[in-house]
Amino acid sequence: MLSNIHSDHAQAGDLVEIVSPSRKIFIFLLATGKEIHTHRGIVKHDDLIGKAWGSEVISHKGNPFFLLQPTLADVIAEIPRNTQIIYPKDIGFILVTMGIGSGTKVLEAGSGSGALTTALAWVVGPEGTVVSYEMRPDVKNLAQKNLNRVGLSSRVDFKLGDIAEGISVRGFDAVFLDIPNAYELISQVKQALKPGGHFGCIFPTINQVMRLLPALHANNFKVVDICEIMLRYYKSHQDRLRPTDRMVAHTGYLTFARSIIPIENTNDEGLESETETDIAQENH
Amino acid sequence: MLSNIHSDHAQAGDLVEIVSPSRKIFIFLLATGKEIHTHRGIVKHDDLIGKAWGSEVISHKGNPFFLLQPTLADVIAEIPRNTQIIYPKDIGFILVTMGIGSGTKVLEAGSGSGALTTALAWVVGPEGTVVSYEMRPDVKNLAQKNLNRVGLSSRVDFKLGDIAEGISVRGFDAVFLDIPNAYELISQVKQALKPGGHFGCIFPTINQVMRLLPALHANNFKVVDICEIMLRYYKSHQDRLRPTDRMVAHTGYLTFARSIIPIENTNDEGLESETETDIAQENH
Amino acid sequence: MLSNIHSDHAQAGDLVEIVSPSRKIFIFLLATGKEIHTHRGIVKHDDLIGKAWGSEVISHKGNPFFLLQPTLADVIAEIPRNTQIIYPKDIGFILVTMGIGSGTKVLEAGSGSGALTTALAWVVGPEGTVVSYEMRPDVKNLAQKNLNRVGLSSRVDFKLGDIAEGISVRGFDAVFLDIPNAYELISQVKQALKPGGHFGCIFPTINQVMRLLPALHANNFKVVDICEIMLRYYKSHQDRLRPTDRMVAHTGYLTFARSIIPIENTNDEGLESETETDIAQENH
Amino acid sequence: MLSNIHSDHAQAGDLVEIVSPSRKIFIFLLATGKEIHTHRGIVKHDDLIGKAWGSEVISHKGNPFFLLQPTLADVIAEIPRNTQIIYPKDIGFILVTMGIGSGTKVLEAGSGSGALTTALAWVVGPEGTVVSYEMRPDVKNLAQKNLNRVGLSSRVDFKLGDIAEGISVRGFDAVFLDIPNAYELISQVKQALKPGGHFGCIFPTINQVMRLLPALHANNFKVVDICEIMLRYYKSHQDRLRPTDRMVAHTGYLTFARSIIPIENTNDEGLESETETDIAQENH
Repeated sequence: MLSNIHSDHAQAGDLVEIVSPSRKIFIFLLATGKEIHTHRGIVKHDDLIGKAWGSEVISHKGNPFFLLQPTLADVIAEIPRNTQIIYPKDIGFILVTMGIGSGTKVLEAGSGSGALTTALAWVVGPEGTVVSYEMRPDVKNLAQKNLNRVGLSSRVDFKLGDIAEGISVRGFDAVFLDIPNAYELISQVKQALKPGGHFGCIFPTINQVMRLLPALHANNFKVVDICEIMLRYYKSHQDRLRPTDRMVAHTGYLTFARSIIPIENTNDEGLESETETDIAQENH
Repeated sequence: MLSNIHSDHAQAGDLVEIVSPSRKIFIFLLATGKEIHTHRGIVKHDDLIGKAWGSEVISHKGNPFFLLQPTLADVIAEIPRNTQIIYPKDIGFILVTMGIGSGTKVLEAGSGSGALTTALAWVVGPEGTVVSYEMRPDVKNLAQKNLNRVGLSSRVDFKLGDIAEGISVRGFDAVFLDIPNAYELISQVKQALKPGGHFGCIFPTINQVMRLLPALHANNFKVVDICEIMLRYYKSHQDRLRPTDRMVAHTGYLTFARSIIPIENTNDEGLESETETDIAQENH
Repeated sequence: MLSNIHSDHAQAGDLVEIVSPSRKIFIFLLATGKEIHTHRGIVKHDDLIGKAWGSEVISHKGNPFFLLQPTLADVIAEIPRNTQIIYPKDIGFILVTMGIGSGTKVLEAGSGSGALTTALAWVVGPEGTVVSYEMRPDVKNLAQKNLNRVGLSSRVDFKLGDIAEGISVRGFDAVFLDIPNAYELISQVKQALKPGGHFGCIFPTINQVMRLLPALHANNFKVVDICEIMLRYYKSHQDRLRPTDRMVAHTGYLTFARSIIPIENTNDEGLESETETDIAQENH
Repeated sequence: MLSNIHSDHAQAGDLVEIVSPSRKIFIFLLATGKEIHTHRGIVKHDDLIGKAWGSEVISHKGNPFFLLQPTLADVIAEIPRNTQIIYPKDIGFILVTMGIGSGTKVLEAGSGSGALTTALAWVVGPEGTVVSYEMRPDVKNLAQKNLNRVGLSSRVDFKLGDIAEGISVRGFDAVFLDIPNAYELISQVKQALKPGGHFGCIFPTINQVMRLLPALHANNFKVVDICEIMLRYYKSHQDRLRPTDRMVAHTGYLTFARSIIPIENTNDEGLESETETDIAQENH
């Protein structure tokens, strides 16, 4: 992915995608002598090597595909997986809300299949740091394999372990948790984050969010936001423009907060009305 | 923003934010001797300088604020503006869908108040390139000023001009348009993009999307996605968890496509059924 | 509302609405000699009496209004209130889901300002029955006054009281609760409903829904549906079609269930997988 | 459906539904000697006849079902069809917005499979009038058959014909169109409606809405609302409460308007600002 970012044509060793007009996507590493088998026919790697990006290519059955550098969203959405992944719609908002960009030091747990890991490694760049905890060895191995495939594993420090037993790093800009019991791990997160640092997590159920809120409070996390993102696609027919028939209704609830150093003996809880907070949140 | 990314305390010259428990946000450059005036009292810059990030500070009226490094989303949402801006919920998805990360070469038009520009400059890092066109001098000046304030202007090449008269760059990875008549500018975009490159744009009305589709078709852009993103916040009360009363219903329709080099004399339009495309899109 | 349903012109005693082109709505009883004062000028009732429905009329300031029989949705949305009301978007779905139509026997608690009561009385017709409980005398009085105004109070049996102390009716087709602690009242609902009858309720918070579920289970309510309805309006400009900028994000969570007579000694819980239920619900 | 609304047990000739715990719904007419075959076993009609509504019954394979009077929403959602139907979420809002209740005179075109027809017939009661146009004989026959099955056909006057050739009725309270070219039929609707009467229609594409707006304008329809309704279900697990994974993204755009008698020589278009209209619409 990274290695050939500014190249204008496909070379052996590149991660490429071929996309059918009906949007079937095949992502693979280009290698001389190999073939990719699709429901629309076979495409020989050798017919792709040397071709300009964006080229239309034809399978042995005469069906067209477009040869492309895989977009980050496609890599994430099509990642080989043995876990539920975090989707691009959520990842984009996580990056912007937590200020994760070039040079950021970010920790995630768990790695899962490496979907968010891929995005983090991509965005923090060569000067950033990504530490990724995973407690299941097989899952960790898959995440590493997936990052290897896209050429980003050198940016990630994979750690096998349970952060309930402590996080070995300190002073991180951001920590993101995708762990069922994340609400039990907030004191560990507090220690790994620098003061003012960003906490984020995703939960499938609202019950988990309810358990998280007192844990954030107890550990002096403030500026708490809870939200969900709905993404609706349209059928791209100029004369019959309309949304698709069905959509994803839910991936997860996102919660964000900042690590705060409170003044002793103050009780700021009572000073502000709910109304103001809510109005501010509605105006985001 | 960038300059002190890993610092642990606020220094003169830093861009800082103070946030009230009710989520009023004040973003400003820290300078000795200055004061920030809020509806909840005055805070002296000198009382902030040297404080750890995340510290709770008290105004002269006794009201608390949290001293934070501004998050990218806050900088964008609070940007001084004389135009409609692109919001964080859309920006995050744009970045991930168009694969904009460390090292990317991206062009945008128009700059507007610099909201997307800020995110692009932040994400592409020191090795990336951002070219931003704006045809109104006063708007361009504001965008530059806004990028200056957050320490990212060195990453952006601001150009005063109308891309209808041509784009001076070539071989870019991605082009994003936030221009009312973007549908008239697709041939110019085609020239600036490298083959296979990413096109994206945002339109407030569906009429504009309808005009865009034939222009994309005529210029051999494929893999077209049209979508919209809805972001819903929750009131963060553990015992009374519920969404906010009101939300943003619409910011804009996002369209994405890839620049394709077609094979001569093929007609791939008829080869694929609508049904397949739509199913693929619904499963994003 | 009812009395003149098929009339073609406004008469003294009618409930009428005048609507400005900008959609300000004024609902009132027409009476000789009276005036309605609006921000766009005064309209004399005598100038409306005898006018055909749908007529454009002009205020003393020269501003136009449309003279209309109030639609049920407008009566509900504009109801004089001292409580939160249930909105048309939710009421419509409640009616259809609970099968409330001509001849239905339905009980609601509490009456609140009478928004749902109005819809129930309208829909059940002269052969239906509406019983409405309210424990606060002032609220009950307002609901009655509101039903009187629209000519539907004869269809409603208002009762002052707390259904926690029991419901006096039996064999009802449907019971709807809009009460904060509805989850404590399910055994009373069970007694009032005929076997197989419809239960429905609305809650602002998800915590209340969580408490409701075990109460439904304990009282043998099955076929449980939980849902929420989002209504998005569009700006009606042909050349610039787009959703409004903001919308209502949340009114309440709706829960529906049926009163079941279980077979002794069966445990149907384990017989069906979650997956099937969820797929069925998604295909609603 | 109607015939036994207040009965407490199932009888031969009744329309009944049996629902599995996983929410598979089977709707049928009860008849001595018959059997209903499901994926979970056979249920004999004779075992249902005489049973109380709400009873749990067991198939020959030992699987439980609940015996219920079909709810209006289930009848609609499960209607035998050869066309796209209008869904309960939209039907409920149509009824409330257009004030369709006991005694209303309403016309619809086309009948389609009779989903909306069923709801209209149910809601207008014995004193109301439903006229339903359909131009395809086979579709009309199915709609009639579907209304017959639920015992509501006596309330509906089915007409075979194209309303482009004129509508034979006059003075109706409400007209609803579910026809692809409804925008070409607005002058016919105008004639059938009483002054001030309600117009409504549903379109799958936004292009159709765009064509409708000038037709409404040309025929003096005002108080125009365009909207769409999103319905999201939740998985009803108390300890893992969350929305379903997928949902219906789009059924159709709803448009509503009122038939107006304008004053000669006024131009009310310019009198009101867009801003006000939009704010009013957002506050619905």
